[in-house]
Formats: sequence, structure tokens, C-alpha cells
Amino acid sequence: MKKVIFFSALFSMIFSVQAADTALPAPVKKGGMTLNEALNARKTIRQYKSDMLSMQQISQLFWSAFGVNRADGRRTAPTARNCQEITLYMLTAKGAWAYAAKENKMIQVSNKDLRSFAGRFKAPIYIVIVSNSKLSGSSPRSLHYAAMDVGYVSQNIYLAAASMNLGTCAIGSIPKPDVLAQELKLTDSEKVLLTHSVGIPK
Amino acid sequence: MKKVIFFSALFSMIFSVQAADTALPAPVKKGGMTLNEALNARKTIRQYKSDMLSMQQISQLFWSAFGVNRADGRRTAPTARNCQEITLYMLTAKGAWAYAAKENKMIQVSNKDLRSFAGRFKAPIYIVIVSNSKLSGSSPRSLHYAAMDVGYVSQNIYLAAASMNLGTCAIGSIPKPDVLAQELKLTDSEKVLLTHSVGIPK
Repeated sequence: MKKVIFFSALFSMIFSVQAADTALPAPVKKGGMTLNEALNARKTIRQYKSDMLSMQQISQLFWSAFGVNRADGRRTAPTARNCQEITLYMLTAKGAWAYAAKENKMIQVSNKDLRSFAGRFKAPIYIVIVSNSKLSGSSPRSLHYAAMDVGYVSQNIYLAAASMNLGTCAIGSIPKPDVLAQELKLTDSEKVLLTHSVGIPK
Repeated sequence: MKKVIFFSALFSMIFSVQAADTALPAPVKKGGMTLNEALNARKTIRQYKSDMLSMQQISQLFWSAFGVNRADGRRTAPTARNCQEITLYMLTAKGAWAYAAKENKMIQVSNKDLRSFAGRFKAPIYIVIVSNSKLSGSSPRSLHYAAMDVGYVSQNIYLAAASMNLGTCAIGSIPKPDVLAQELKLTDSEKVLLTHSVGIPK
């Protein structure tokens, strides 16, 4: 009986992981628009076509935002004292996923459409930037740095979007950060600090 | 007599402005490293050669950080509610300059070497990021956004440095922010929030 329970638990564990994970294509690390062109094109765009982004575009957006760019696990954006307190989530019509930077994959955490909690623009994708005060520290000074750290990641999203001719808007006035936190199963020390709507400009 | 004073005042005004201002070469907005390569190369570098940067590199660094990229005066980095509350300063062995983004020039504000107040690394240049709470608002929420806004600018400096094979380090623990504020002649509502050492990597 014990064995049956064990194997059944193991099976459902493996199954649920397999069902929930989506491997991302490798991000492009060489070609594309020049940094100077991307800086020159950077702007806020709030209106998007309903078209879904490609997996390559999604991979590129998340890697640019806060992906791993070195063998020691360091990232495309710095964090104060290298706390790496930030986690990114993707929201689409089909659910929500946590970005696993090291494994370059998406781990599904919800099958609900949570986009309206993240922002008011009609966008095929929202990126949610979550900061964990257990990792950054929770003193006023630490939270000040944690806010800065979100800015680094957000600028990467702006530039990556510009370089792929996508539109994006950083949203600080998030409609329902608490509902979002609950649906994304965040811990008490994790806070939604910023979101980004992303899509093909109308 | 009045006329003499007037002309003398006018002359010294023109002269001091001419002496203090340094026009920058136009920033490159097309060529250079791709964004993806810059993101992949982005890292913190704390040791630099003593060589001074070229005026073109300086122009590129400041334009990338928080330059004007649109005809309406909008910038390479966003600010919450487009407050544009950030001013950048350059510190070298020869003095300190305010970056006038619209005019693409440097306005000298001190002839002292203020670098040791900005950071502990030996670097030919420091960039000082100043935030004006009169423009951003001074509520806890506004200051939280103002901190994020600094992150955007700082990431631009990281990427611009990477794209020019320069090294940089963002410094939150600034040795003497108050002395710096005084020497840069900042108003009470302006605060030094972050500095960057920049140089050619050793």
C-alpha cells in the first residue's frame, strides 16, 4: 500500500511538473538591433494588436530582462549586493508562468487569465516583476535599493521590446497587486512591484 | 559708469558661460554593439586604467543614460509620470559638470576633483545621478518610483559601457553624498541617489 501511494505521488509530481513546464528556445545573444538604435527607439507604447508573441520573442524578452549572462549565474541586470531578489512572471490569456532563468523555461503557476489584475491595457502578455524582501532585506534602505533594482529590469524590457519592434509600458499603478500575489502563490515576503504590458504595436 | 558696469557684467557672464560649457560631439544613434551582445557582456567592473575617456565616449555614455531621444524632449530612460526628475553630473580630476541633455553639452559647476566623495574606486570619471523630489514628488510612493527611475538610468550606463568595452560599477553606498550635494550646488530638494565609476577596464 505504501509503495502504491509513493509511486502515485511520484507519478503525479512528475506529471504535474511536465505539464506545467515550457522550455524556451535559446535567447539570441549576438544579432539584432544595435544598443544605440534600441536606446533611440525606446518609448512607451500602450496599444497593441491581439497577436500572441512568438516563443523566441518571449525567450528574448525574459532573458534580456533578468536572464543569466554568465557561467556563475549572474544576470543581465544587477541587484544591490547581488541579492537577485527578483522573479519574473508571464501572464497570458491561458495562465501564468514563473520564469526560471537558469533553466530558460517557464513554470506554469496558474491556468487563469490574470492580465486584468496587472494592468488596464489590452495586451497579449504581461510581465510581472516580483521582489522578495527576504532576499533583498526589508529595511527602508534595502527596499529603496530593491526599487532601483526593479528599474534595471524594467529598462531591459523597454530596450528588448524596442529592439524587436514590440511595444511595452511599465505600470506602477497595478490594479490588483494583492490578488495577483495570491494567484501567483507568492510568499508573504514577495511583492509585485511593477508590471509591463507587451505586444505588437497597433 | 552704469554702462561700464553693465558691459562688464555682461562680458563676465558671457565669458563665464563660455568657459564653463563644453559642447559634446553628437552621440552615435545607429552603429555599435547589438543590444543582445551588450546585455550578454553587462557586468560590474571595479578596476580601471587611468586613461581619460574620449569626448565621444562621454557623449555616448550620457546620451545613453538619460539623453533626449525624441523631438518632444522625451528621454532614453522613462520616469514615473514623465517627471524627468533626474540630472546627471560628470566628475573628473579637473572638476564637475552638469549634463545638459537637450543642448548635448556639459556645464561646469566646480573646478575641484570631487571623485573621492562619489566612490572609492580609482576611475577617470564618475557619473552622479541626482533626483529632484520637487519634480518627482516627495511622498513615500513618489520616492519609491524615483528610486526605480534611477535604476533605469543606471542600467543604460551599464549597457552603454558594455557596448564600448568600458567598465562601470553602480555605487549605492556613496562616501560623501552631502559634500557632493554642496559642491555640485544642489538645491534642498535634490539628492545624490547613485554614482557610477567608469573607465577602461584594467
